[in-house]
Amino acid sequence: MLDKSHIEALKHIVGEENCYDDKAHLVAYCYDATRERYEPEAVVFPRDEQDVSAILAYCNTHKIPIIPRGAGSGFTGGALPVNGGVVLALERHFNKILEIDEKNLIARVQPGVVNKMFQEAVEAKGLFYPPDPASQEYSTLGGNVSENAGGMRAAKYGITKDYVMALRAVLPNGDIIRAGKKTIKDVAGFNVAGILIASEGSLAVITEITLKLIAKPKFSRSAMGVFTSIESAMNAVYKTMASGITPVAMEFLDNLSIRAVEERFAKGLPIDAGAILITQVDGDLQQQLDFQLEVLSAKFKENGCIDFRIAQNDTEAQNLWFARRNVSQSITIYGKKKLNEDITVPRSALPELLSRITQLSEKYNFKIPCFGHTGDGNVHVNVMVPDPQDEAMLKKGYECIEEIFKIAIALEGTLSGEHGIGLSKAPFMRLAFSEAEMSLFARIKKAFDPNNILNPGKMGLNMGENS
Amino acid sequence: MLDKSHIEALKHIVGEENCYDDKAHLVAYCYDATRERYEPEAVVFPRDEQDVSAILAYCNTHKIPIIPRGAGSGFTGGALPVNGGVVLALERHFNKILEIDEKNLIARVQPGVVNKMFQEAVEAKGLFYPPDPASQEYSTLGGNVSENAGGMRAAKYGITKDYVMALRAVLPNGDIIRAGKKTIKDVAGFNVAGILIASEGSLAVITEITLKLIAKPKFSRSAMGVFTSIESAMNAVYKTMASGITPVAMEFLDNLSIRAVEERFAKGLPIDAGAILITQVDGDLQQQLDFQLEVLSAKFKENGCIDFRIAQNDTEAQNLWFARRNVSQSITIYGKKKLNEDITVPRSALPELLSRITQLSEKYNFKIPCFGHTGDGNVHVNVMVPDPQDEAMLKKGYECIEEIFKIAIALEGTLSGEHGIGLSKAPFMRLAFSEAEMSLFARIKKAFDPNNILNPGKMGLNMGENS
Repeated sequence: MLDKSHIEALKHIVGEENCYDDKAHLVAYCYDATRERYEPEAVVFPRDEQDVSAILAYCNTHKIPIIPRGAGSGFTGGALPVNGGVVLALERHFNKILEIDEKNLIARVQPGVVNKMFQEAVEAKGLFYPPDPASQEYSTLGGNVSENAGGMRAAKYGITKDYVMALRAVLPNGDIIRAGKKTIKDVAGFNVAGILIASEGSLAVITEITLKLIAKPKFSRSAMGVFTSIESAMNAVYKTMASGITPVAMEFLDNLSIRAVEERFAKGLPIDAGAILITQVDGDLQQQLDFQLEVLSAKFKENGCIDFRIAQNDTEAQNLWFARRNVSQSITIYGKKKLNEDITVPRSALPELLSRITQLSEKYNFKIPCFGHTGDGNVHVNVMVPDPQDEAMLKKGYECIEEIFKIAIALEGTLSGEHGIGLSKAPFMRLAFSEAEMSLFARIKKAFDPNNILNPGKMGLNMGENS
Repeated sequence: MLDKSHIEALKHIVGEENCYDDKAHLVAYCYDATRERYEPEAVVFPRDEQDVSAILAYCNTHKIPIIPRGAGSGFTGGALPVNGGVVLALERHFNKILEIDEKNLIARVQPGVVNKMFQEAVEAKGLFYPPDPASQEYSTLGGNVSENAGGMRAAKYGITKDYVMALRAVLPNGDIIRAGKKTIKDVAGFNVAGILIASEGSLAVITEITLKLIAKPKFSRSAMGVFTSIESAMNAVYKTMASGITPVAMEFLDNLSIRAVEERFAKGLPIDAGAILITQVDGDLQQQLDFQLEVLSAKFKENGCIDFRIAQNDTEAQNLWFARRNVSQSITIYGKKKLNEDITVPRSALPELLSRITQLSEKYNFKIPCFGHTGDGNVHVNVMVPDPQDEAMLKKGYECIEEIFKIAIALEGTLSGEHGIGLSKAPFMRLAFSEAEMSLFARIKKAFDPNNILNPGKMGLNMGENS
């Protein structure tokens, strides 16, 4: 519990204007995209790395929980102060792009920079930062690194970890470290940057990120394939990806998802289709695009595609992508509460996965619209609970989710492709990890954070007495 | 110190025929590519993961050093048993390709599989595993992962870490763990696979590796640019890479390297050139190759290239690459002892780096031929010591190396791009890392290996009393 002396000490570090414990601030920083609420005891806006170091050292001495926070747009409660303590909000003073190094195709940024703003800044220079989580308009790069965010372009371009070259970070004891280098290769010392990525703010506070950029491909084209069944679409996905071409994106919507978008927006979508696949190719030569679209068309048609439409201009491309971009909000027609998971399986297991989800939908009598990033095996599975006030029904919803996790793991998949574990998936960690693995996680956590002050209570870590 | 009872216990685990402590075996496993020699006390060939687990658990209880070993082809002493103990040789029973999954473009291998054999196996199926360290004919994939090996194709295709999807490994306490998944995305739990890569066998023994594959590009072409000066060649490198095209490889030889190859092989190389750049492009369409070669030619010529030759067939391509492939053995004409380092800098720092190395060569009066992977900023710097028996001269050689490390770090580079730290570079770790960073490395090591039994004495880790 924070008392007045702790608040005074924090104010002394960052200044009165950067430390708050009034109700308005505590409420403003009590939520994230899960809609769950846990109030912190203080909200602090560090001005620089020295402030972060001083705050962490103070909180470490006094065993006060610290919850680093970017935009608070995470889906698994990673930014929720479940044990009270101090929210360390990086949005106010850590929002600068420090350098775009065109000679080396590298950028240095502060963690509070919003993904989309960064993308626009590098694209203005003809460069490209591919990771594009759906939250890109508000989520921050620090959050993206902490969760290892993916996005639609991951099928070709990979995910956040593939672009992180180096980090500066502050350890719970206040030590400032650098991890990684501004070089393509670096094998000196342990890969600390590698383990900070996706660590959900539980090992260190990231204060600076060095990102790899690539040249922006000159051309891109979008296309859509309409399939009679979900199985045929899933077969098309893995067989296309195995054929050797690599589209930028390979997104899918199942029948329920298509119908939901059509019901809300009346765009003339094929509501009887089992699934649609929306895809994009890019390159520096038109011939490359033509070649890739030919292969896509052929592979799709071999696998039950009854209509393959190539967008002829930007407007048509926007229209193809409209359904994908608006599906998440549209499926709420199926239930007041959406239990939204982002399981991922090897692509060849997609047909089996979707078939088993259909069976679950019948067993539990929930609508379960599915859509997402099939190009990398990542499916957003949404168990729609019509009446979450009905406790028995909600409980059944969670049972259904647990079955989905078990299926994903049985198919050599993972609990989470991009959202992380946080609070929401913590109870399921033991489905995926052995006692030996969980114990190793706890030892790694202790190596960085022996007093368990950084984002405690997340990721299902069992920290013994301190947890 | 191992006594007879330890040897008996190890024989009990793996069988008589897989455990040796005779002189012949101890000598056979006392070396690596550094040519330094440290004899182990026993050599053990585990038959399976259960053997590895039992051996580690036994050695952990008795605090016996364990040195995992693939081909022993490392350049920094990573496989040397500097504190005696047991060499755990994985070449005999861990040499199988377990699966090539064409549906998901994934392979599962045992750590003792030789890189080149694996490349051939996947290429026979039209697939491609890009990492190609110079040691590929004998180095093992387990060693490649443990050192995070690079190679010539890293400029376009990245390094070993970019292909490791998952690992199975045994911890020093005997626990068997899995880390990572057969999925493109996986953000559940800490990135343990990420920290095992490049950990030089000091955290766990890798028993199985799941690798990402890509489709093999249909076409490739090679070309060579001749430059009047090393500076102009280095400018050409970073300006070409910044222009947006990504050649597979962008290798260089400086004048001393060119002359050395020519003196040994008389291939008609341009011995008055300041440097040559040898490059390769690939793709699925000939037009892509033409386009890339046009950009390369233009960028090279803008930066002082006086002759740009495109190989017209395989034989010509082989000839272009001959110099690069034979440079390492050729430069021995400059001195009996080669102090060979693999520093790496951001590409735009290459001109400054090479210019400072020229100054060092004059200051110390050593020939310092340089060649390597400029496409990713990785330069093999070879301080040639004419008479290593002359202790003062050899000492001067090491002083020169230390200055080179300092220059690399001043230019935001790293001690090692691909060879690792091992024994050879351990004394220089504190040039690159702060006390806080070294202390974190030690805590990570302790989280995995509290008794410091795995490859002790490497990477400059200060493990306190146990080290």
